[in-house]
Amino acid sequence: MKKKIPVGVLAATGSVGQRFIQLLDNHPWFEVVALSASERSQGRKYGEACHWILPESMPEWAKEIEVVPNSPEFVNLPIVFSALPSNIAKEVEPEFAKSGCFVCSNASAYRQDPYVPILLPEINADQINIINIQREKYNWSGGIATNSNCTSTGMTIALRPLLNNFGIKKLFVVSLQAISGAGYPGVSGMDILGNVIPYIKGEDEKVEQEPLKMLGSYKNNKIEFADFKISAHTNRVPVIDGHNVCVSVELEKQVKIQDIKEAFINYKAPASSSELPSTPKPIINFIDKHDRPQPRIDRNIGKGMTTTVGHLREDPIFDFKFVVLSHNTIRGAAGGSIYNAELLYNEGYINI
Amino acid sequence: MKKKIPVGVLAATGSVGQRFIQLLDNHPWFEVVALSASERSQGRKYGEACHWILPESMPEWAKEIEVVPNSPEFVNLPIVFSALPSNIAKEVEPEFAKSGCFVCSNASAYRQDPYVPILLPEINADQINIINIQREKYNWSGGIATNSNCTSTGMTIALRPLLNNFGIKKLFVVSLQAISGAGYPGVSGMDILGNVIPYIKGEDEKVEQEPLKMLGSYKNNKIEFADFKISAHTNRVPVIDGHNVCVSVELEKQVKIQDIKEAFINYKAPASSSELPSTPKPIINFIDKHDRPQPRIDRNIGKGMTTTVGHLREDPIFDFKFVVLSHNTIRGAAGGSIYNAELLYNEGYINI
Amino acid sequence: MKKKIPVGVLAATGSVGQRFIQLLDNHPWFEVVALSASERSQGRKYGEACHWILPESMPEWAKEIEVVPNSPEFVNLPIVFSALPSNIAKEVEPEFAKSGCFVCSNASAYRQDPYVPILLPEINADQINIINIQREKYNWSGGIATNSNCTSTGMTIALRPLLNNFGIKKLFVVSLQAISGAGYPGVSGMDILGNVIPYIKGEDEKVEQEPLKMLGSYKNNKIEFADFKISAHTNRVPVIDGHNVCVSVELEKQVKIQDIKEAFINYKAPASSSELPSTPKPIINFIDKHDRPQPRIDRNIGKGMTTTVGHLREDPIFDFKFVVLSHNTIRGAAGGSIYNAELLYNEGYINI
Amino acid sequence: MKKKIPVGVLAATGSVGQRFIQLLDNHPWFEVVALSASERSQGRKYGEACHWILPESMPEWAKEIEVVPNSPEFVNLPIVFSALPSNIAKEVEPEFAKSGCFVCSNASAYRQDPYVPILLPEINADQINIINIQREKYNWSGGIATNSNCTSTGMTIALRPLLNNFGIKKLFVVSLQAISGAGYPGVSGMDILGNVIPYIKGEDEKVEQEPLKMLGSYKNNKIEFADFKISAHTNRVPVIDGHNVCVSVELEKQVKIQDIKEAFINYKAPASSSELPSTPKPIINFIDKHDRPQPRIDRNIGKGMTTTVGHLREDPIFDFKFVVLSHNTIRGAAGGSIYNAELLYNEGYINI
Repeated sequence: MKKKIPVGVLAATGSVGQRFIQLLDNHPWFEVVALSASERSQGRKYGEACHWILPESMPEWAKEIEVVPNSPEFVNLPIVFSALPSNIAKEVEPEFAKSGCFVCSNASAYRQDPYVPILLPEINADQINIINIQREKYNWSGGIATNSNCTSTGMTIALRPLLNNFGIKKLFVVSLQAISGAGYPGVSGMDILGNVIPYIKGEDEKVEQEPLKMLGSYKNNKIEFADFKISAHTNRVPVIDGHNVCVSVELEKQVKIQDIKEAFINYKAPASSSELPSTPKPIINFIDKHDRPQPRIDRNIGKGMTTTVGHLREDPIFDFKFVVLSHNTIRGAAGGSIYNAELLYNEGYINI
Repeated sequence: MKKKIPVGVLAATGSVGQRFIQLLDNHPWFEVVALSASERSQGRKYGEACHWILPESMPEWAKEIEVVPNSPEFVNLPIVFSALPSNIAKEVEPEFAKSGCFVCSNASAYRQDPYVPILLPEINADQINIINIQREKYNWSGGIATNSNCTSTGMTIALRPLLNNFGIKKLFVVSLQAISGAGYPGVSGMDILGNVIPYIKGEDEKVEQEPLKMLGSYKNNKIEFADFKISAHTNRVPVIDGHNVCVSVELEKQVKIQDIKEAFINYKAPASSSELPSTPKPIINFIDKHDRPQPRIDRNIGKGMTTTVGHLREDPIFDFKFVVLSHNTIRGAAGGSIYNAELLYNEGYINI
Repeated sequence: MKKKIPVGVLAATGSVGQRFIQLLDNHPWFEVVALSASERSQGRKYGEACHWILPESMPEWAKEIEVVPNSPEFVNLPIVFSALPSNIAKEVEPEFAKSGCFVCSNASAYRQDPYVPILLPEINADQINIINIQREKYNWSGGIATNSNCTSTGMTIALRPLLNNFGIKKLFVVSLQAISGAGYPGVSGMDILGNVIPYIKGEDEKVEQEPLKMLGSYKNNKIEFADFKISAHTNRVPVIDGHNVCVSVELEKQVKIQDIKEAFINYKAPASSSELPSTPKPIINFIDKHDRPQPRIDRNIGKGMTTTVGHLREDPIFDFKFVVLSHNTIRGAAGGSIYNAELLYNEGYINI
Repeated sequence: MKKKIPVGVLAATGSVGQRFIQLLDNHPWFEVVALSASERSQGRKYGEACHWILPESMPEWAKEIEVVPNSPEFVNLPIVFSALPSNIAKEVEPEFAKSGCFVCSNASAYRQDPYVPILLPEINADQINIINIQREKYNWSGGIATNSNCTSTGMTIALRPLLNNFGIKKLFVVSLQAISGAGYPGVSGMDILGNVIPYIKGEDEKVEQEPLKMLGSYKNNKIEFADFKISAHTNRVPVIDGHNVCVSVELEKQVKIQDIKEAFINYKAPASSSELPSTPKPIINFIDKHDRPQPRIDRNIGKGMTTTVGHLREDPIFDFKFVVLSHNTIRGAAGGSIYNAELLYNEGYINI
């Protein structure tokens, strides 16, 4: 690749926006040339407008970029990464798609749209085909692809080898989620220090629905949902990054625990997504220990893109229990959208 | 009551031992006159031997008591409260029972013994009758009664009105447990600060088994277990006190959510346990909000003896989901054993 | 006292307002009959308008009180406790004082006013005399008295016996402050979890100035400031309640460490403040250990009103080093103002 | 460099030992070929013997190394990195030095030895010359060099430009230290969660003494200590990594705040230590903001080797106040010793 593809980040000053910038630093294919944000920050340099909260330093190049409005008039590029709040994404993202830009979005606004894929390239790269229908239906020259809700991300990836090999009938999941998922300032210190909040608005519902779309198949010009039931409880715990999810699964087939282990260990991504710059290495990290995964220890495996599975054992009601960990602001947010953009570029969906 | 009953605390220097002392301060019926511990502390004054870790101050009277060995030779009293580690409890508690003393134990050593009840007076006071069989079988003039595993405590109490009114078929539970449950020094700060540990040795098994005994019925001179299945995942989270448990339950009867609410709100303890000094007020505190219970906010309701239930909603696989909170070192440990002793005394099982 | 004095709480829905309500529950002299707050809450019942964040339950009586505006038209009572933000306190508190009401304020708005005392009854009860001058100068029939900045509270109380007995020349202090001092939502969880924030706006300045006024003497109809220098660094740490302050002090006299110990241990409050309902018991709790005070363990001593001092040792540059702990939302805020009101009532400054 | 220098790590299973292994992974000059530990781990593979607690994964090569005893018989190499506890280091390190091996030690055992330098290459690389005297006096063909106490590290580096340019008269410091400094399991979760411990055994003394040696000069075949006084309070706070230190300094010269800023910004390491693989980039990171440095945000600057200084302002008693942050297990422990080894190698002190 001779010249890098110029890209923009929408809502660049928030916590997910910051992750986009940090992860796009030195990206082999993409170069950030535009940053947009709400009115308060517009016209200021990013280095001044942004209250940076990541442990990694703000890249030097970002400091000097002038923040512009969230609009295709100001950000006219082949790809934008959207960290917009859902209500604004609802209005703004289609404008970009119409203008020929491809929106790789972290917002939930279009995740339920039948023509917008929720991409997890390592498990459902084939759903990219719906983009052709999307363009036709909406008369867009660009497009929209979203990443997954951060809580669903790891568990959905871990379920793919189980669904493929053994079929899934029912699923109980309980999440223990990091506070970075709520943005900044997000959760009050008074609420979370030494405490658990057993509720995240709208999250149970997302976790009960989105995985079925992501694990569905692209057939007859549409995405057919996977056919099983999920029950979810979602909790906020005093962890900075990394969502742990306790999973109990009932399978179609009767199998041994060793079969489950091997399914995790041997899982391979589809060819189209297995050699991209952001492809997790490994896709699934299976740890054969009871006290793992742990967010503080395991979240950065594979540069935060890997899904870690551990504490596998039999379940007295369903078939098996295990625990999944995914880095919520890397694999489950900004890193996921960048991975999506790489797939979309490689498959020819980006207008350059 | 003219004169208080003299009692002792075994393993008085540990974290549960400290809670016994703090909760027995100014108890209307009992007066602590003996404290025992392991060899290292014996012969020293309690105030010097004990590294006190509770936010409430050590009572003045406790400071001057000389620590003696964990043996009925040195602690010859009608009641002892046992905070012994399970392996020592296994040997020592029967010696006390044989000597005529009643052991109200927090240890798990005899919880599976068919003649030892796991008492939760507000829901299974009738199981006290097994003591008569216990004395006969083991030729004890005293006895042993245990309290519940701290994680099972709250959820088991909350299940009683559901079992009584609607029947229970299946139960999924995931705990988010405070670190005080692991004693002192217990969990390393390096392991738990900003982290989750998805495993507590032996805890899944206890939570899957003990509630069935506690919810069982005393019939034909034995405790018949409740007949349903439990699947449990147990987790340690960075909270000092208070275990939250996410519950999904499948019932025998088809009922409405309003019926569940009313069952919680209207639950009454059996007459024999409803007016004791440690009877929780209220037994069950139902909070009709989604973001509750929270350990930091709700654990001290009813002086730490109340079971709090909240976030009730329908479950897409089973019937209902809700969250239960119980203070693990008060209702789930020392406070529970004191409540047991009050019941045993009132029902005439204490030799004075 | 036959009938309790009716009192009000201004800005009752915030974190300090909640502490006022919790601490006034069952107060022997005062009865809360009015609660005011900003427009958003007005007209609603307190139980609905307030997002309660304290571990103690909201008192039942408070739930039914209708929230009214922060104005003497709506709250016409002998005493109001003010938890108003400083800018609003600046305007509103004089209106109450003019109307004949006595404002016991937690706000900093009038702390620097030469006629408004910053009362710490256990060390400067005599400064109450400035109220007579205040009334004359401002033509008020009521009055204003403030409590201390929460960080200065404990260290200033601890300094009183040293100043009285040995004189003070210089003082270095570094605070490690709890997040409840910043109100609610206050400090973001993302900022404070596993972190330290080395800066609290305006706090260094308050800690360098207010203690000199509080340790001053009432002479010639004015408060003469104590004459020594303070250097302060203030930090926010991941603690819910309780400010620890590291102190190094240079004294006028050459003394032994044993003299310092005895000065702390033997300190007595002035007669006028030593038998009030909120008088700390003890005033100063000296712990002769190196690893104390600790906020989680020691903050509730004396129901959160006691000042705890420990880790006393010699200082290689100044004379002595020690650590002071005070409960920032009890002694350092609401509890302090209630203690002030008790003193004011007993000394005849309340119009009833 | 054609072939890497083989090195060993003593006490490799502890928390500092783990950091040595993680930081030596892919080191351009050194290759770990031996790992030693106490009897319990000997004979086992490192991957099994070690309870790994770092967020970075254990390097693959380390997993297969067999753990040997802490003795030059088993570890016969040009360089060993010592993470030994001080009492064992006292005995074992001289045996290595005698055998011709150079011990780069994190232990405090020999820090006060007049012939053993406490090296901070970016500020006192010249003290390396004492090694020649050390070898002569002790008849060693190898040698011992230690790194600094982790709390002193950052503040001592930050003081170098002030001492060089303006002279130092007096220093007050208060630390807020991370728990990783206490090793593993180290500080109990019950002690540190939501709490502050105002005492670390022996730490005040180290911080009051070691910086004077490190800031001293090599003259007349000995290290002459810097001549000023330090007063230190050290605290443990609920942070995983990164020690913040609040500093107040009195200088010899009267200078402006701008001079201090420039001294920090313009500081350059001595030529011999400025281009080594572990040389911090930058040496000192001056942040011109009040709310920085913060451990969670700033500790990883310069791969954890940089010293960060911020919140600079005038001091009412001394001259200036500021805050210093250093990563305690990287710059303040393992990373520091590796940097020392690089300097020693480059200056010809390693026998290869």
